Amino acid sequence: MTDAALAARLTEITGGPTTPGPDDGHDECLTVAGREPAHVVRPETAEQVAAVLKAASEAGTPVTARGSGTGLSGAAVPSPGGIVVSFERMNAVLEIDTDNHVAVVQPGVTLQELDARTAEHGLVYPVYPGELSASLGGNIATNAGGMRAVKHGVTRHHVLGLQAALPTGELIRTGGKFAKASTGYDLTQLIVGSEGTLALVTEAVLKLQPRVAHQATVLAPFAGLPEVTRAVPRVVGSGLQPQVLEYIDGMTMAAITHTADLQLGIPDAVRESAQAYLVVVLDGRTQERLDEDVEAVAQLLSELGAVDAYVLPAGSARKLIEARERAFYTAKAAGADDIIDTVIPRAALPEFMTRVTAIAQAHQTFVIGCGHAGDGNVHLAVFQKDTATRSTVLHELFAAAMALGGAISGEHGIGHAKREHFLALEDPAKVELMRRLKQAFDPAGVLNPGVLL
Amino acid sequence: MTDAALAARLTEITGGPTTPGPDDGHDECLTVAGREPAHVVRPETAEQVAAVLKAASEAGTPVTARGSGTGLSGAAVPSPGGIVVSFERMNAVLEIDTDNHVAVVQPGVTLQELDARTAEHGLVYPVYPGELSASLGGNIATNAGGMRAVKHGVTRHHVLGLQAALPTGELIRTGGKFAKASTGYDLTQLIVGSEGTLALVTEAVLKLQPRVAHQATVLAPFAGLPEVTRAVPRVVGSGLQPQVLEYIDGMTMAAITHTADLQLGIPDAVRESAQAYLVVVLDGRTQERLDEDVEAVAQLLSELGAVDAYVLPAGSARKLIEARERAFYTAKAAGADDIIDTVIPRAALPEFMTRVTAIAQAHQTFVIGCGHAGDGNVHLAVFQKDTATRSTVLHELFAAAMALGGAISGEHGIGHAKREHFLALEDPAKVELMRRLKQAFDPAGVLNPGVLL
Ligand SMILES: Cc1cc2nc3c(=O)[nH]c(=O)nc-3n(C[C@H](O)[C@H](O)[C@H](O)COP(=O)(O)OP(=O)(O)OC[C@H]3O[C@@H](n4cnc5c(N)ncnc54)[C@H](O)[C@@H]3O)c2cc1C
Ligand SMILES: Cc1cc2nc3c(=O)[nH]c(=O)nc-3n(C[C@H](O)[C@H](O)[C@H](O)COP(=O)(O)OP(=O)(O)OC[C@H]3O[C@@H](n4cnc5c(N)ncnc54)[C@H](O)[C@@H]3O)c2cc1C
Repeated sequence: MTDAALAARLTEITGGPTTPGPDDGHDECLTVAGREPAHVVRPETAEQVAAVLKAASEAGTPVTARGSGTGLSGAAVPSPGGIVVSFERMNAVLEIDTDNHVAVVQPGVTLQELDARTAEHGLVYPVYPGELSASLGGNIATNAGGMRAVKHGVTRHHVLGLQAALPTGELIRTGGKFAKASTGYDLTQLIVGSEGTLALVTEAVLKLQPRVAHQATVLAPFAGLPEVTRAVPRVVGSGLQPQVLEYIDGMTMAAITHTADLQLGIPDAVRESAQAYLVVVLDGRTQERLDEDVEAVAQLLSELGAVDAYVLPAGSARKLIEARERAFYTAKAAGADDIIDTVIPRAALPEFMTRVTAIAQAHQTFVIGCGHAGDGNVHLAVFQKDTATRSTVLHELFAAAMALGGAISGEHGIGHAKREHFLALEDPAKVELMRRLKQAFDPAGVLNPGVLL
Repeated sequence: MTDAALAARLTEITGGPTTPGPDDGHDECLTVAGREPAHVVRPETAEQVAAVLKAASEAGTPVTARGSGTGLSGAAVPSPGGIVVSFERMNAVLEIDTDNHVAVVQPGVTLQELDARTAEHGLVYPVYPGELSASLGGNIATNAGGMRAVKHGVTRHHVLGLQAALPTGELIRTGGKFAKASTGYDLTQLIVGSEGTLALVTEAVLKLQPRVAHQATVLAPFAGLPEVTRAVPRVVGSGLQPQVLEYIDGMTMAAITHTADLQLGIPDAVRESAQAYLVVVLDGRTQERLDEDVEAVAQLLSELGAVDAYVLPAGSARKLIEARERAFYTAKAAGADDIIDTVIPRAALPEFMTRVTAIAQAHQTFVIGCGHAGDGNVHLAVFQKDTATRSTVLHELFAAAMALGGAISGEHGIGHAKREHFLALEDPAKVELMRRLKQAFDPAGVLNPGVLL
């Protein structure tokens, strides 16, 4: 099929033009350059998505899904000559089911919109990745995490069912408004986290829960990172069930509070001696229980070596969390050359950070960070202009994480950005198996080629 | 390869005889007859399992894994002339990691053993299917559920990683001691619930949590099943987070309390008018909080139409839960011809039960039950001697569940028992996709043929 014929076919299917706009070919990844696709479709129905995939499979033309383009691994950057399927028009919250506690959404709905809609019913979708303009489709494709994962789990744990368009042109429904089944292979979980390489999500059934009314944020400065990382398993182990358990190193804290013009009310002397911070957010069904738990956590933190523990006023707490969510932009503005998010068993944090320091020093690279400490998900900003050296540093960091029983990415995905490292470091038997699974979904190989595999 | 040559090869790999014992070829399924396998191996290492699979793939001989044989779908019944891989010797708890809150176990470990080991550390593996002699390998293969799923989720939600032997002979490791990753397809979740048809589990990393000290059981009689089923979403929606939320119909309650010789201390008048019961178990970090929550739930239940609400003494509570777990044997002893466990959205319970009654009446079949109401997972005992009629009844029950957005099995699996219904009722596009996934794992088609697909 010629390019013009394909464009005509796509227009026939979706009823719209296929000319790319300026924003259709990139995401927020620092290392993968955007690329203008040959065609962009903006479907309005699942059937249109399926028909586009069928046409693309027949034409052998690559297809890349696009949510909000906030991804950090280049997974939304299309292939040369490819089609982008942009989900901006499939952005309806189809249902908030207050009896079954689920939301049914189209993939283009943003986290922000969903949060507003669930709030009306006293419910919440408790997955809060840092970027609330991200789409649910993108969240599902990357298995997005975020700060509350330590208590509530990640996207995967809240996707109960999907409607998905297969590259072969069928629409299937997986799972449903229930939390358990033993009826065939779990296609839902296979599609979650597959970075748009297996199927395109056209609808999702998401698990909601009652919104908890009371919340408090405790900030604990520590002398150094080792002290923080050693405290983490103990806080998780306490049974206090923190909703957020973030570590922020001294440099990153300085940068994000400066950028956000944030006063934390910490005495200068403490601030100057603190090389690392732990942020603990607790929630409770009643204010009374919350107060008890805050007291208990403050007590625990001081036993674990915190210099002090401050309960932040609601305004500063919100600002701090927001500033932490924007840490990516702070690092980017400071000239970071890459941001990675390795995951390790949380008790391996001290050892991992020791290795990170050694790797950084050996290659004269500047590495700072913060992270979802409760999950062992460490976000590192890597400052190293030289591409080859940076690649070596990344390879060593990923290898160190894997040697400690971790994985390359906790929540951002592999995409184009980390594919080479993934293929170099992952067990070849697993990579081959994944290729066969990919082939089972996508015999023509049109869905996001070059991403992940 | 001749049978004798294969036997010799298997002995060479595992160092033991391959003669079947009397218990190697059946499970607890009421409708699938046991069958003696041609060979049984009792491997001691993952490498032996992988080598057995390689040999079986080369010989084209079917392989069926066996845990404790407590399954309810015939999935552990081997193929004619097949090999059974019994995991009884791979029964070590390899590690209780108190920092990362995980257990690493071999597949032959039973739930009972794991519970004893985690208790020593104040931790718990919070998945409690009714049969504690079941193995973790079997639990993983069936995605076992149980009563506490309403709060804690099912097996799937607690398996963080696996070591698995592929039919092609490789050993792979998936996931790890972390709760999140976005690093390739989630092979862990694909293997969970696959009923021994994709890979054999040789090790599992399981998520643990702090054991909660305080627990209370509330029993609420209701006038009828519709009242109970309508109450369920409200109890879940209360935010009180019940650990158990079971419904038991009047007949089943009579049978299990009679069998267990259990006095619940409910006045005769109430007992005679109650056609259905709700059992609510709550837990709490402190006795004080638990007492508050018990009060709140009793209040809520009475608002929702319960005749009364009894806080059971610890002894009776334990006995009631145990009797409920043994409900399968009670039904079996009463002459039940099949037991099924459809799952539906929990708010569809009243409508589903109405349809169940209509289907039962139309086919002069006796159907009673109990179930994990909070999950919409309904266990029904079907009394119908005529095989053809029973098959029609089952087909209609499954179709009714699916029409309400549910699935055939919530936790027992499809196995041999429900395969025909699964293939008849499931979307052909999904079945075909599952066949291609099966092919990707098991090109020789040796793993548990005739189960599921
Ligand atoms: C400031 C900032 C903070 C962030 N914080 C976090 C964080 O805390 N945790 C976290 O996990 N991530 C975080 N991210 C990363 C990003 O927000 C997530 O990866 C998010 O899931 C991407 O969603 P999106 O809609 O922007 O997807 P896109 O970038 O548009 O696409 C991401 C991937 O999803 C695929 N995709 C999109 N829609 C579909 C669909 N319908 N079907 C199939 N595939 C589809 C794309 O092809 C691509 O592979 C952050 C990003 C920024 C910029
Ligand atoms: C009284 C009673 C109550 C029950 N209550 C519940 C309940 O509440 N919830 C629930 O979910 N189930 C329940 N069950 C069913 C049963 O206990 C579960 O299905 C359990 O998971 C089976 O474990 P098993 O070790 O006995 O597996 P088996 O019966 O031996 O095998 C089950 C399946 O697992 C496969 N398998 C076993 N080991 C492995 C391995 N290492 N790798 C790959 N595949 C393997 C087998 O091939 C088979 O397909 C109950 C059963 C009884 C008898």
